[in-house]
Amino acid sequence: MEVSKILHMNSGVGDESYAKNSLLQVICLVWPIIKEALEDFWSTQNIPTTFTIADLGCSSGPNTLMIISNLIKQVQQLHKDLHNKPFDYQIFLNDLPSNDFNTIFRSLPNFLEDLKTQIGADFGRCFFNGVPGSFYGRLFPNKSLHFVHSSYTLHWLSQVPEGMEIINKGNIFIDSTSPKNVVEAFYRQFQKDFSLFLKCRGEEVVIGGRMVLTFLGRTDEYPSNKDYCYCLKFLNLALNDMVRERIITEEKANRFNAPTFRPCPEEVEAEVLKEGSFIINEFQVSRIDWNFYNIEFDASNVFVDGSYNFAKGIRSVYEPLLILHFEEAIIEELFYRYRQIVKDEMSKRKCEFVNLTISLSKI
Amino acid sequence: MEVSKILHMNSGVGDESYAKNSLLQVICLVWPIIKEALEDFWSTQNIPTTFTIADLGCSSGPNTLMIISNLIKQVQQLHKDLHNKPFDYQIFLNDLPSNDFNTIFRSLPNFLEDLKTQIGADFGRCFFNGVPGSFYGRLFPNKSLHFVHSSYTLHWLSQVPEGMEIINKGNIFIDSTSPKNVVEAFYRQFQKDFSLFLKCRGEEVVIGGRMVLTFLGRTDEYPSNKDYCYCLKFLNLALNDMVRERIITEEKANRFNAPTFRPCPEEVEAEVLKEGSFIINEFQVSRIDWNFYNIEFDASNVFVDGSYNFAKGIRSVYEPLLILHFEEAIIEELFYRYRQIVKDEMSKRKCEFVNLTISLSKI
Repeated sequence: MEVSKILHMNSGVGDESYAKNSLLQVICLVWPIIKEALEDFWSTQNIPTTFTIADLGCSSGPNTLMIISNLIKQVQQLHKDLHNKPFDYQIFLNDLPSNDFNTIFRSLPNFLEDLKTQIGADFGRCFFNGVPGSFYGRLFPNKSLHFVHSSYTLHWLSQVPEGMEIINKGNIFIDSTSPKNVVEAFYRQFQKDFSLFLKCRGEEVVIGGRMVLTFLGRTDEYPSNKDYCYCLKFLNLALNDMVRERIITEEKANRFNAPTFRPCPEEVEAEVLKEGSFIINEFQVSRIDWNFYNIEFDASNVFVDGSYNFAKGIRSVYEPLLILHFEEAIIEELFYRYRQIVKDEMSKRKCEFVNLTISLSKI
Repeated sequence: MEVSKILHMNSGVGDESYAKNSLLQVICLVWPIIKEALEDFWSTQNIPTTFTIADLGCSSGPNTLMIISNLIKQVQQLHKDLHNKPFDYQIFLNDLPSNDFNTIFRSLPNFLEDLKTQIGADFGRCFFNGVPGSFYGRLFPNKSLHFVHSSYTLHWLSQVPEGMEIINKGNIFIDSTSPKNVVEAFYRQFQKDFSLFLKCRGEEVVIGGRMVLTFLGRTDEYPSNKDYCYCLKFLNLALNDMVRERIITEEKANRFNAPTFRPCPEEVEAEVLKEGSFIINEFQVSRIDWNFYNIEFDASNVFVDGSYNFAKGIRSVYEPLLILHFEEAIIEELFYRYRQIVKDEMSKRKCEFVNLTISLSKI
């Protein structure tokens, strides 16, 4: 399975779409690190006449534009304080070719109008570009980027390691019953993918350019009993229920593995040091309560319990992958069961995401 | 009516889509001029490490990729003959934000694979970007483009001149009964729009960079009895029939004008000279028979008469504009009548498009 040809979040702006369910709160958490990276860049580097920003794995949601809006406002502030020459932005929004770029492009005219109103007369020109392609490969010319941002994307691998349908039976990811060679195979794939990511960005980012990456991660050993990926664990439980009830065949379920790996800080750090294009300025490990989903900007969510929002969010991410492997007909049933499990588990324990955010400079 | 917010060709790859019906044959006609512009650039300019190409008004059709494919093959040939250093491409595909970029992005992976097979080991990297925005405004940083191509786009105005619903009653464009002040108003709009286009591209194209533009044009006076725009004249006839039969109200029909202007060579030349960013290297005026629509690459079209193909092509272009103004329900009926008129007229006379192709250098 070549992930780059099929992986995409749900399109459009409907109820199940990633646009409505994506992880808004991460922005608040990561923002101080981005702000510092920009301040540092502005105080130490030659300021270009066009500042180029890339958001890698932008999806079709409003989060990418929220980040871009904040970035631009911050840069405007820095620029006002330090310089006085005119200034343009070139913004590259990247995702896989199957991503719904139409939705994001159609929201740009209003977005830009709002931004101009907020910033006022000082605001330079802002050139938007969509960049369809995998970030596990080159996307931009040499030394053409000043700032790279990527959030909740690098836990997606370029492919599921081979042979998982045999050695990882009954699991759809690295679960507590996965043998050691499953963990090793997924880790090797992560090393290969992340190292290639760093090499490509190393060629594309100017010397002194910055990169802020946020991973879904973990803090303990793999297979994990503490931090690891409940969202997939519960999906696995729901799937296995359906296998037991013969709604899905065991053979079909075994052939599904999610192409994801949640690294721990040491694993991320090791790849950056080994690859050598970037130095680490800052590394933040933080936790986000799943119930944070309740604190969405969408007022209609206020009276809905956290499990509902959480299940919707996970559905928007995994549905396209699941539909491709199973039939569309089972999806409603699967996510109905999933929500029941999530609701039950959330009442019993505190469920959290682990976030790893790393701020890098190109050397 | 702000055209930039609503104008787009029909999306997707269905039967009515622009992708299947667009004007393939123009490429053959214009290609010698593009080839010469590239040869000239390659023999006189410093060769950049990344060659940047923009196709403005790319639509969602395969034509833009056919042009890009030919451009790249030509550049590879030139480069092979003259130099030997590695070489990347950055390709910008521009259209309005409402364009169907998803369709074109999803075809890119296969397109690139084919191109690599055809060109072989010499082929450098090729970075694709979608650029959503109106070309009657800035789209790119200063001096960032080496080659600009735009085909059958600049006859679209940024807006219908004001007051047409009163002074151009019974017509949906400059028709034989349009008074002089209608012609003048449309011409003023063309001058304003094309001049702004030239000014913006003048800032974006490097000195010595090339631009090849193809217009739908005319060769005689406006309102025209000879060359002018039969495709809209027949649409006007079909609409007026439906007004007479009270399927559409007269008031509603009067409020519709197509935001197009087909310039004559002198009008194009005058704007280029007046604006002053570019010099004219070549100007070609040519004619294309409507029946050329029969010679499509789609084998299923072989047994269908020219009027059917022609009506489909025009529908793919005008349908989105018409749906926005009239109700969707009348569209089938309108284009049924349109096809009858086209069929009748094509049997009586030779119907042709007038093409104006201009090759420019940035000074």
